[in-house]
Amino acid sequence: MQWYFVAALLTVLTSSQGILTTLSQSNGEYKYDYATVPFLAEVFKLAVSSLLLWRECQKSPLPKMTTEWKTVALFPIPSVIYLIHNNVQFATLTYVDTSTYQIMGNLKIVTTGVLFRMFLGRRLSNLQWMAIVLLAVGTTTSQVRGCGETSCDSLFSAPIQGYMLGVLSACLSALAGVYTEFLMKKNNDSLYWQNMQLYTFGTLFNMARLLVDDFRGGFENGPWWQRIFNGYTTTTWMVVLNLGSTGLLVSWLMKHADNIVKVYSTSMAMLLTMILSLFLFNFKPTLQLFLGIIICMMSLHMYFAPTNMLLDMPQTVKPDEEKLIEVSVDRRTHS
Amino acid sequence: MQWYFVAALLTVLTSSQGILTTLSQSNGEYKYDYATVPFLAEVFKLAVSSLLLWRECQKSPLPKMTTEWKTVALFPIPSVIYLIHNNVQFATLTYVDTSTYQIMGNLKIVTTGVLFRMFLGRRLSNLQWMAIVLLAVGTTTSQVRGCGETSCDSLFSAPIQGYMLGVLSACLSALAGVYTEFLMKKNNDSLYWQNMQLYTFGTLFNMARLLVDDFRGGFENGPWWQRIFNGYTTTTWMVVLNLGSTGLLVSWLMKHADNIVKVYSTSMAMLLTMILSLFLFNFKPTLQLFLGIIICMMSLHMYFAPTNMLLDMPQTVKPDEEKLIEVSVDRRTHS
Repeated sequence: MQWYFVAALLTVLTSSQGILTTLSQSNGEYKYDYATVPFLAEVFKLAVSSLLLWRECQKSPLPKMTTEWKTVALFPIPSVIYLIHNNVQFATLTYVDTSTYQIMGNLKIVTTGVLFRMFLGRRLSNLQWMAIVLLAVGTTTSQVRGCGETSCDSLFSAPIQGYMLGVLSACLSALAGVYTEFLMKKNNDSLYWQNMQLYTFGTLFNMARLLVDDFRGGFENGPWWQRIFNGYTTTTWMVVLNLGSTGLLVSWLMKHADNIVKVYSTSMAMLLTMILSLFLFNFKPTLQLFLGIIICMMSLHMYFAPTNMLLDMPQTVKPDEEKLIEVSVDRRTHS
Repeated sequence: MQWYFVAALLTVLTSSQGILTTLSQSNGEYKYDYATVPFLAEVFKLAVSSLLLWRECQKSPLPKMTTEWKTVALFPIPSVIYLIHNNVQFATLTYVDTSTYQIMGNLKIVTTGVLFRMFLGRRLSNLQWMAIVLLAVGTTTSQVRGCGETSCDSLFSAPIQGYMLGVLSACLSALAGVYTEFLMKKNNDSLYWQNMQLYTFGTLFNMARLLVDDFRGGFENGPWWQRIFNGYTTTTWMVVLNLGSTGLLVSWLMKHADNIVKVYSTSMAMLLTMILSLFLFNFKPTLQLFLGIIICMMSLHMYFAPTNMLLDMPQTVKPDEEKLIEVSVDRRTHS
């Protein structure tokens, strides 16, 4: 399977995620416990990965599976990072308003590039760095509050702690991505085996989170397993399946492509969501959305287009050495 | 003189032009006839060019001056294009509001690229085209109306004729630039001789305009030459000298650099004006200005940076032919 096909599918599914989540609300509020969604998505991913691993085991050669404790112990770490990230996110939102928070979220694109370079040692060209910055600028542009929107004076008027937490949040989010890529590419274990480990810990951490919520609420509504499907509709199930599927696609991309591809996918998804919202929720198109789309498209082309296309050079960037030598050999024969 | 030094100077002067013009108003209105400013600027440019040509004539070799009627006849054309442009501009503003007009003005950047390619036959790489589009997107982004600004619903709600005239206006403005470049590079006549022809016609056309204004006003305030300096202050004179100087710099760039350099200069000037206005007129900084500046800086780097810097290739993109041949010659000697 080609990575760009997976990336395109991820864009479409991530985009539907936002729309489905909005559609799953009734009168602007959730009738179900939203914390159950990521838990069930983890269970779904675990089930799918187990099934695929089992099928792989039927064939020969057998899939490669490292079961050393030292390796398995690396798999809960993404869950731990996400746990910390969630808490930082929560703390950030006590300082800044959601719209500033959303704008700051674009910083994740740049921090992913930086950590990608630092921890995975992947070199990016000057042009690719520019493309990454432009992607962040483009998504931010599309989110600029337009004329006549309510509550605008609050943007970037938060205390300094808010911004510092925002930056930390962007770093943690990037770290989780980069670490997962490191984990998936560390050895050539079967993807499904790696997934199984990842999602087992994911399921456990999400379960723990539901339990903590119950303790905090003093078990007022009974334990989570008794009311897990309360308020679930078909749309809620679609949200779960969608979240699970995007998770599986991201994990595939981490193994076979990289974090930058993922970042492009999800950024494009954000723009796609905004475009679809124009039609579905009758949002007004803004100049800044249009500009943001152009910027992101340029960035995409800059990052992924072959350099000889960008520079309009003939197919071979360097005149190939053999030919030149051939010419001089010819010259020698004639002299 | 290096072209980038001239371009930087043009940026600074163009930027001061906007600020000086604002400062030359008292209580938000002009106490002088603004139409006299371009006329006097033309006279200033004509005087400076004559002086410089005269100095050039003192030295040998004598400057090259084509006096053929066929060549001289090409010089009033820029003035004619500007005349048509002014009228189209006026017509456009009857359909669209000034803020839409300002946004549409950025289209000039792209039309200049297109006409530059079509009429001057200059090839631009894929990356350079992207840089040009990004420059237009960047300047537009910086102008996006923010939250809480007054009169916003009018943006892009004008009749279709307004937009068509806006596009025509952008084309005419680009055409004037591209035609002037063609004119200046057509032969290796002295720049000052070419300027003299250009500004003689410029002076005449501006004089005619003042006269037409007088006729329209029924000579209520007497003929223009009797009240030309009415309401002039030191700042007004600075506006005149500044406009004249930027004109001379543009003409130098048309001869020794090109239209794209000019477009970058004036776009950067617009951003510089906005930055200076933050301090001078206590304007509130906006997120969109910040984003616009980043986009334009990226565009500048993309257009002008050497390709091996952009791609992080070693200093020589192509292994130079001589060296390879040398190597094979060596090989021949040894064999």
